[in-house]
Amino acid sequence: MESTTISACIIVIFGGTGDLARRKLLPAIYNLFRREILPESFAVVATGRQDKSNDEYRLEVADVIRKYARLELDEAKWSQIRERFYYCRFEFEDPRGYQELNRLLNNLDEKYQTCGNRIYYLATAPEFFEVIVHRLQQQGMVCNQHSWQRLAIEKPFGRDLASARQLNRMITGVFLEQNIYRIDHYLGKEMLQNLMVIRFANIFFEPVWNHHYIDHVRILASETVGVENRGGYYEKAGALRDMVQSHMLQLLTLVAMEPPTDNAADSIRNEKVKILRALVEFSPETIREQVVVGQYDAGMIDNQPVNRYRDEDKVAPDSVTETFVALKAFLDHPRWTGVPFYIRTGKRLTQKATEVTIQFKAAPQSLFFAAAGRLEPDVLTIKIQPQEGASFQFNVKQPGTRELVVPITMDYCQNCLDENNSPESYERLFREIIHGDQSLFTRWDEVEYAWKYISRIHQALEPGKEVFPNYPAGSWGPEAAVELLKRDGRKWRNSGGERRR
Amino acid sequence: MESTTISACIIVIFGGTGDLARRKLLPAIYNLFRREILPESFAVVATGRQDKSNDEYRLEVADVIRKYARLELDEAKWSQIRERFYYCRFEFEDPRGYQELNRLLNNLDEKYQTCGNRIYYLATAPEFFEVIVHRLQQQGMVCNQHSWQRLAIEKPFGRDLASARQLNRMITGVFLEQNIYRIDHYLGKEMLQNLMVIRFANIFFEPVWNHHYIDHVRILASETVGVENRGGYYEKAGALRDMVQSHMLQLLTLVAMEPPTDNAADSIRNEKVKILRALVEFSPETIREQVVVGQYDAGMIDNQPVNRYRDEDKVAPDSVTETFVALKAFLDHPRWTGVPFYIRTGKRLTQKATEVTIQFKAAPQSLFFAAAGRLEPDVLTIKIQPQEGASFQFNVKQPGTRELVVPITMDYCQNCLDENNSPESYERLFREIIHGDQSLFTRWDEVEYAWKYISRIHQALEPGKEVFPNYPAGSWGPEAAVELLKRDGRKWRNSGGERRR
Repeated sequence: MESTTISACIIVIFGGTGDLARRKLLPAIYNLFRREILPESFAVVATGRQDKSNDEYRLEVADVIRKYARLELDEAKWSQIRERFYYCRFEFEDPRGYQELNRLLNNLDEKYQTCGNRIYYLATAPEFFEVIVHRLQQQGMVCNQHSWQRLAIEKPFGRDLASARQLNRMITGVFLEQNIYRIDHYLGKEMLQNLMVIRFANIFFEPVWNHHYIDHVRILASETVGVENRGGYYEKAGALRDMVQSHMLQLLTLVAMEPPTDNAADSIRNEKVKILRALVEFSPETIREQVVVGQYDAGMIDNQPVNRYRDEDKVAPDSVTETFVALKAFLDHPRWTGVPFYIRTGKRLTQKATEVTIQFKAAPQSLFFAAAGRLEPDVLTIKIQPQEGASFQFNVKQPGTRELVVPITMDYCQNCLDENNSPESYERLFREIIHGDQSLFTRWDEVEYAWKYISRIHQALEPGKEVFPNYPAGSWGPEAAVELLKRDGRKWRNSGGERRR
Repeated sequence: MESTTISACIIVIFGGTGDLARRKLLPAIYNLFRREILPESFAVVATGRQDKSNDEYRLEVADVIRKYARLELDEAKWSQIRERFYYCRFEFEDPRGYQELNRLLNNLDEKYQTCGNRIYYLATAPEFFEVIVHRLQQQGMVCNQHSWQRLAIEKPFGRDLASARQLNRMITGVFLEQNIYRIDHYLGKEMLQNLMVIRFANIFFEPVWNHHYIDHVRILASETVGVENRGGYYEKAGALRDMVQSHMLQLLTLVAMEPPTDNAADSIRNEKVKILRALVEFSPETIREQVVVGQYDAGMIDNQPVNRYRDEDKVAPDSVTETFVALKAFLDHPRWTGVPFYIRTGKRLTQKATEVTIQFKAAPQSLFFAAAGRLEPDVLTIKIQPQEGASFQFNVKQPGTRELVVPITMDYCQNCLDENNSPESYERLFREIIHGDQSLFTRWDEVEYAWKYISRIHQALEPGKEVFPNYPAGSWGPEAAVELLKRDGRKWRNSGGERRR
């Protein structure tokens, strides 16, 4: 359902010279323009603390497009829009900056017929979220009369349940919930959106999508990179906050949710919230059994030696921050009774991959193929990145044998032939914000229930109890994470034929 | 379950210089030897009407292996077994020939320790089946004491219900049913055997393998060849007898049958017979609506002009023999209530392909993807020949779109990389006869129920009522066959992307 809202607007990026703006937001805006998805009337205003002219900033924008945009910089096309990029020097705390910004925006409204519509995109460090919103209100820059002002706010949304609640109270005092776009950029990924389509636009999957047929679900987001230059942020976050509270639980909801009654944002989010509410809370006992945390030691990635976490820049030499989490979650839900959802995420693992694996129960062995030995289960894998696609493993007779049964895999890859086939998350997310559709953004209650779930783990984990580091860089994480499945007679297997450990 | 019967034996081929022996049987024996599946103690005795020495015949065998065997003739290997091939000149009618043959077989028993075990393979024209069996009995060549004698009998097994019954009475008066191997060589095809494995060794397919989820089933066996040099046989047979009574109905039973209680031959055949008994008999009315016959006219195949059927060698210029059949069958069966099985087979069609297509019902449109327009149904295709494999078509979101839903296909091909990967039907069938397993051979009641079904059609068709020829060579058959599905709001679609008519 395409939104009918008038989409002419000015995109205001707070943190316009930062990493996120450079790598993701500005290239996404350019790609959208190239795909003719941007409204005819638009402008982009970036704010930052550095001193620079509009022209200097425009040169920078062209640079980052060349460097990061998936579509090539076309000089003729770029010349059509380069004048629409503005820079505004600005301290987040200083009210005068907002006044100047406001004057600029009002002028641009006239110039570009943007009617007072704004997207305020908070691409700053999280400590500035509240002050920026507060100042925007103070300066009368959020009015919602004959125009709209939307707030796009990056994660982390709070650092625990209490701080998230406070942040939410603050921003909902200024913006209407319908104008708040809480970013979880995983929701912009093609294959996350595809999860709902694959489940609900095919008759084939729903009949087996439940505890009668599914043995367990594995959700993986493994990275080979370490904390890179984000040690300062990561020390306060850790993998539970950085990955599990947001991306991993979002993936889980999309796998587990009931079909929505329609495709309106709130119909979908209602179903997702039901799943988050159905997550069985951990007790101190179950945490010991079902949660494994880890921190990486030195090791080898791509045959190169890499540091341990504690030796990374801006990381404490005795840090107890976790860079790896494995957990076994259950849902108190009729569809999912007794089905474990194994989540695994970590930095400096052996392979970069995000994927969801549905492992079905094995076919009845006694029936017919007793002679064939143990039958492999059917396995459906939804590959999210870097490869986007799906694969299905099932059993066939090995040619030439009487009845040797072997698993084979059918594959579908939507970005293998053309890596640029698939839009970036931020392209999709910008488009949705411009169109005013909140489907791909987390509603407050989603954030809240996710924090509740995570906070129980944080409370129960005793910092320093685990002996860190406990896994070498380039491995699949701590031994205890393997045990988590082994104890249940299961095994973590990734797609692509690897069956490590 | 490998059979424990002692498999040492002599293979006696009646019609040892004929087309079937040359193209299929002798190469299959060689391939089995190369794969070390033949028993250590074996010999092959071919009978024929021509006069030739053992050595002349052995040269011929080496020739046909070079020409037709999928495994290359290895001179060293061949020299290990060439002496085991014997030729015996012989008229089918003449008792003295059988006496000589018997003497030869007894001598070879001593030479090769084959213990009196025989496979009598009838690779002759069907009119000789009865006399050969009769003479074998007369000469005491079927005794079943301290040894076994198995009869392998090629189709057609009779030319209608009455003649099939008579043939069966005759041979079961001589051979035990457990020693009769009625050949339907389709049952030796890898993917036909795979049908049961795919259905029953995976948990994924059974839950949707019924009328709740399946819209209809299509069974195709299309050939590009005409009747070649078999006009004399074909004039008396036609597509209903030649293809539908045997191969097509066998395919249908494998798709439709319930899981057997174990993999013993009779457990499987019990289930297949239940399906044949569940076939809803045609009435004169339903035949008019549900059966289309055709005969090919001149046309183009691979850009070469080809004759019409009536101009083929040994075909009457006013022949009313059908070279094409399309029919819609129903099963009176709880699993298959209301599900049509569309069968289509013919000569001189545009493409050579045998495949089974399971078309599922479309996912509920109203639920969620109303905006996406009509959803394509999920489609599972089992490809039998020339490609062997499976493909699954299902819906995904088109990358880069908001919610455009498009079908994509996942594919699995077991003979695409190596055409010789897959044994020929006759290799498998010989192996089973040697091992004494009847799973891949039709039991009498299967043949009988199939004839009952076909006879009703033959009785109701009025020869000459159809204006023949009624389809050009190189087409997909008569227009009425398209109408057969179109009337039901359906369309015949073959795998490989073609969606002709």
